[in-house]
Amino acid sequence: MKKPLLFLLSFLLSVQFAHSQKKSIAVTSFDKIRLEVSLDADGVAGYSVQYKDRQVILPSKLGFELTGGINLSNNFELTGIDSTAVDETWKPVWGEWNKVRNHYKQLTVHLQNKKANAILLNIVFELFEDGVAFRYEFPLQPNLKYFIISRETTEFIMTGDHKTFWIPGDFDSNEYPYTTSSLSEVDAWKPTMLSFGVKTENIPDQYAVQTPLMMKTNDGLYINIHQAALVNYPAMELHVDRSTFSLSANLVPDARGNKAYLRSPAKTPWRTIIVSDRAENILSSTMILNLNEPSKITNTSWIKPMKFMGVWWEMQTNKGSWSYTNNPDSLSATGKLVPHGRHSANTANVKRYIDFASANGIKGLLVEGWNTGWEEWFGNWQGGHFDFVTPAPDFDVKEIERYSKLKGVQMIMHNETSADASTYDGQMDTAFRFMRKYGYNSVKTGYVGQIIPRGEHHDGQWMINHYIRAAEKAAQYKIMIDMHEPVCPTGLQRTYPNWLACEAGRGNEWNAFSDGNLPEHETIMPFTRMMGGPMDYTPGIFKLRNYARDAPARQVHTTLAKQLALYVTMYSPLQMAADLPENYAGHMDAFQFIKDVAVDWDDTKIIEAEPGDYITIARKEKGKNTWFVGAITDENSREASIPLNFLDKNKKYVAIIYRDADNADWKTNPEAYKIEKISVDASSTLKIKLAPGGGAAVSVKER
Amino acid sequence: MKKPLLFLLSFLLSVQFAHSQKKSIAVTSFDKIRLEVSLDADGVAGYSVQYKDRQVILPSKLGFELTGGINLSNNFELTGIDSTAVDETWKPVWGEWNKVRNHYKQLTVHLQNKKANAILLNIVFELFEDGVAFRYEFPLQPNLKYFIISRETTEFIMTGDHKTFWIPGDFDSNEYPYTTSSLSEVDAWKPTMLSFGVKTENIPDQYAVQTPLMMKTNDGLYINIHQAALVNYPAMELHVDRSTFSLSANLVPDARGNKAYLRSPAKTPWRTIIVSDRAENILSSTMILNLNEPSKITNTSWIKPMKFMGVWWEMQTNKGSWSYTNNPDSLSATGKLVPHGRHSANTANVKRYIDFASANGIKGLLVEGWNTGWEEWFGNWQGGHFDFVTPAPDFDVKEIERYSKLKGVQMIMHNETSADASTYDGQMDTAFRFMRKYGYNSVKTGYVGQIIPRGEHHDGQWMINHYIRAAEKAAQYKIMIDMHEPVCPTGLQRTYPNWLACEAGRGNEWNAFSDGNLPEHETIMPFTRMMGGPMDYTPGIFKLRNYARDAPARQVHTTLAKQLALYVTMYSPLQMAADLPENYAGHMDAFQFIKDVAVDWDDTKIIEAEPGDYITIARKEKGKNTWFVGAITDENSREASIPLNFLDKNKKYVAIIYRDADNADWKTNPEAYKIEKISVDASSTLKIKLAPGGGAAVSVKER
Repeated sequence: MKKPLLFLLSFLLSVQFAHSQKKSIAVTSFDKIRLEVSLDADGVAGYSVQYKDRQVILPSKLGFELTGGINLSNNFELTGIDSTAVDETWKPVWGEWNKVRNHYKQLTVHLQNKKANAILLNIVFELFEDGVAFRYEFPLQPNLKYFIISRETTEFIMTGDHKTFWIPGDFDSNEYPYTTSSLSEVDAWKPTMLSFGVKTENIPDQYAVQTPLMMKTNDGLYINIHQAALVNYPAMELHVDRSTFSLSANLVPDARGNKAYLRSPAKTPWRTIIVSDRAENILSSTMILNLNEPSKITNTSWIKPMKFMGVWWEMQTNKGSWSYTNNPDSLSATGKLVPHGRHSANTANVKRYIDFASANGIKGLLVEGWNTGWEEWFGNWQGGHFDFVTPAPDFDVKEIERYSKLKGVQMIMHNETSADASTYDGQMDTAFRFMRKYGYNSVKTGYVGQIIPRGEHHDGQWMINHYIRAAEKAAQYKIMIDMHEPVCPTGLQRTYPNWLACEAGRGNEWNAFSDGNLPEHETIMPFTRMMGGPMDYTPGIFKLRNYARDAPARQVHTTLAKQLALYVTMYSPLQMAADLPENYAGHMDAFQFIKDVAVDWDDTKIIEAEPGDYITIARKEKGKNTWFVGAITDENSREASIPLNFLDKNKKYVAIIYRDADNADWKTNPEAYKIEKISVDASSTLKIKLAPGGGAAVSVKER
Repeated sequence: MKKPLLFLLSFLLSVQFAHSQKKSIAVTSFDKIRLEVSLDADGVAGYSVQYKDRQVILPSKLGFELTGGINLSNNFELTGIDSTAVDETWKPVWGEWNKVRNHYKQLTVHLQNKKANAILLNIVFELFEDGVAFRYEFPLQPNLKYFIISRETTEFIMTGDHKTFWIPGDFDSNEYPYTTSSLSEVDAWKPTMLSFGVKTENIPDQYAVQTPLMMKTNDGLYINIHQAALVNYPAMELHVDRSTFSLSANLVPDARGNKAYLRSPAKTPWRTIIVSDRAENILSSTMILNLNEPSKITNTSWIKPMKFMGVWWEMQTNKGSWSYTNNPDSLSATGKLVPHGRHSANTANVKRYIDFASANGIKGLLVEGWNTGWEEWFGNWQGGHFDFVTPAPDFDVKEIERYSKLKGVQMIMHNETSADASTYDGQMDTAFRFMRKYGYNSVKTGYVGQIIPRGEHHDGQWMINHYIRAAEKAAQYKIMIDMHEPVCPTGLQRTYPNWLACEAGRGNEWNAFSDGNLPEHETIMPFTRMMGGPMDYTPGIFKLRNYARDAPARQVHTTLAKQLALYVTMYSPLQMAADLPENYAGHMDAFQFIKDVAVDWDDTKIIEAEPGDYITIARKEKGKNTWFVGAITDENSREASIPLNFLDKNKKYVAIIYRDADNADWKTNPEAYKIEKISVDASSTLKIKLAPGGGAAVSVKER
């Protein structure tokens, strides 16, 4: 509900020449946040942000350049200012909270260009308790209908050489390990200590980084810059000026080098600046969700968060294979493909997973490699590898449908596109009808490789729209979707709640086939990648050493207890129990936590957090008086302190603590854990020692 | 049926050093055609062609360059030669003949590269009575799987400065008027006497022309170069060396400048060289059809050639409009679009066409502008204009379905994509289901504008595959398809017989909205554009002056009688009666020919033809003993001489002759015609005077 602004905005419409000839045209505050909008003598629009009287964003430019030499980065004059305030509460279909307060003050600055055809441009700011967001709007106007953005000139000028958690500004991947450095040390071309092995490296700008970009100032301010409601526009990367600490928008181009093709009225995604002096507040921010449109899906009753297993980790670790044959060109004497015998997605093996999932209450089962085309799908930029409806010869679709229904397990479809999004556009109807026919109500999609249409990028405007088309078309068929290798999410799960999760980051799988993820990785992800939305991180690996067939020395960089904690700290409505049934079999006591843990929540408390160091989160299961707590640390041991003051007073609870054994260590003794059951109440504080690379998971149920 | 070659091939495998160090590796003849294949001292493969001992193609190079510096244009050695001969007859689903003889000798030259990874390349030649075709095959081989063609080095070196009928080598359009010049005068950047106004000019090479390229030598040899079975490969344009008369392959690139992404085993389209000393034999050639695969559609009973009318010419001439409103952004007080009142595709007007078509036995009715999105679909390179299922507010889909069925008229769907092929890929299922739901069994598609995916071209590999996807998906829904603005056809109507027709050339519509087509235009089209397949040329304009609302001086460059003749000379299984009902109303005696003329044939006789001057064709209606004759001329009057010796001996026929009135002239008196009914038999010869820009149409029925 929008209501007229009842309080006075402190507009400073009088001429105020500052040191840089800046004329302040609006100053407004909301809670701890103060925004100032300016126009300088050249008509360049700018803004700056303060938090509790501390500068967050120094005066920074706003604007665009359009093709055809249309310059919208200067020569603006103010034609008006509107403001309003909103305080509303809405209920997400699923989420970390069962209701979300959307409380902000909105300020719209109306500009007109004095030179470029009198083009009108509005800049809409929204001030939240935890930061500022702004977007550009090109209103309907006589002199601008169809136009092409060649550059967005938005800046975010930092006050100093902040500590930064960053990945390279790759047009096609977010699957990098995070580097922690000062802004002045950002170098997207510098190899890290970990192998990248990203399938499509495409980093033209040596000093560009992806958003969400997490920073921490020397005086303890946490700043997060990202984007919200990324629709019909390319993703924004940030170019880092290593001497001025200016971050400037770098839009991902199309094949022609253009950035966005728009028609007025048009609006850009929001640029979000979340700020706090407590790291916990960054993680509890709902700003990005609030900036997205409400659900476009009216009947959401078919959308159900779930846990799932997968015929998957065994291929990641090369125990088995996605493919059925070594040579699709060679047929047997009877005209059939010759199997190599290592195809994991065979009916018998799938049934083995169905049995385990059924016996342990895991609702879903993903099967990768079920279809033809896996022999040479990778790295060829060819397209047409997959048709999404043709099973491998040893995958019996009907029998698996029958057996999974008998066992009460929900099969999850897999559609790897090999980044041939154009073929997938044409095949989606066929693929989704196939799913409905055989009882699949969700799909994991994948975009590994260089995009087709060739010249497009994973993070460009065309693909941004493709992901949304996929979510919309899936919704038409009442299918939930989990996208791998898309752009980093921007809160669109509010608008398309069937879009349960994305990968778009360096998941647990990298521990299977590469040097993996550092112990600190999962303490950074919630502050970066996951600010945009849920991640299908695939936790739950129990066999942490000796799992990679071809690399016996390889190991996961966590303890087993930390793998459990990730179910709470890495929020997703879709959580995988990623390891093999046989690896769980010896640890069914620990697996109990995975069986118990919820995937949808009434409430979430960020108990303690520091990016790169540790995170402790408590969440309350939706519709139940049960809490789950996850605590993780980086390579350093620490003691997590968890006051249980979120519990109902005067009630008694049982806490089951899954913690690192006293001698556990991610490197030397990762699988040593201890399970303790204790009585607790709202006055209790759990003190749990986390091993190096360790963690703890706790379930707290009413007695 | 293939059978072992029973005759001896005159292989010259002995070393024969010619003046250019060429070693002839194979010489073979078939009927009047002689082919020589060679390897020179550098291992460059070449070929030359003779017709009746006259040189047609001088020794010309063959080969490729691949990305990654892989050179397949030299260093070849011969590893073997295979040959076979075929003489078979097949029945097309529809066509100019009810059966087609496929008679050729095949010679496959197996080459291996001595430097580039020992790559294997086969060149397959097929010698027909009327020419030579060849294609490249990359066999399955260990050292070449996925590869990218950066250049095809194929040459066609002409023997002299031939007279040539050409259009510019535009990556995105074939809709140019033809220029007749010598090869040495080809200049694709030189404006012609007629306005182009092509929507997407994209001619990077000043000396490139499209195929089919029609040539005539000084000594009267007719040579036509085109391509057949264009699948998974870009179209080939020909670069003209104006001094050496060498034509070399210019493949249409993708956004990255690459030409074709292939995987072995792979084969290119055929390069076709049709040659004769009679122009008529060029038009009667079935080589291109024969080089295509048989129908992939098993049940073809639903595929029916037809005549149709259209709510169309009135928009082309600006009597009405495709759009419903002037301003889609402005709604009325009741929230509705405000109509401008000129929308042609309104229910009442559509019914008027249904009534006329029904009363006159015209089977189909196309309605353009029936859907939303036409206000600003043109020239914006934006995509997403059309959703293919949302009718304009005044087009009542259900009522039109009801009324057309009542009246026995088959509605034809229109899907203009605004060249946003990627959106159409995603929407085709939805669009085709909509068609099936509302009783449409055919669709006219359109690709006006710059292609999306941006960077792709109408004639590039991605779009080539898109057109085939559209034809295949349409076939899945039992829908016939007529594509406008695709690549020039290459005989694929044999493989996809539901792909009835294409535009891909400068149709009659250019007379509506531009300076039009010269009187010679229709005498060139069958030798150029139409060598590849049927064209939806839209003949039948009766009101030849004063039809263009905004250009009263504009006129069609033919007489009325010539418009009738085009139904025979411009072969298509889909023929439009393109003018307005009210323009036919005053000439129903002439319209009788359009009512009578067939669209599917048992036999076709090219009676006389000279590109740029005249064409006379007789065709026998499928399943009936009825013939239709069309004779046209260019700007010069002439007397067509039509021996009726194709009629059954000893039978009597009635010929109805629709001819130019004696004082007719396309320029001064175009609508003057005369209808005569006479008795004829196989011994008769019709002598009919054609006015300047005129023609004649004759129906010959058994008495």
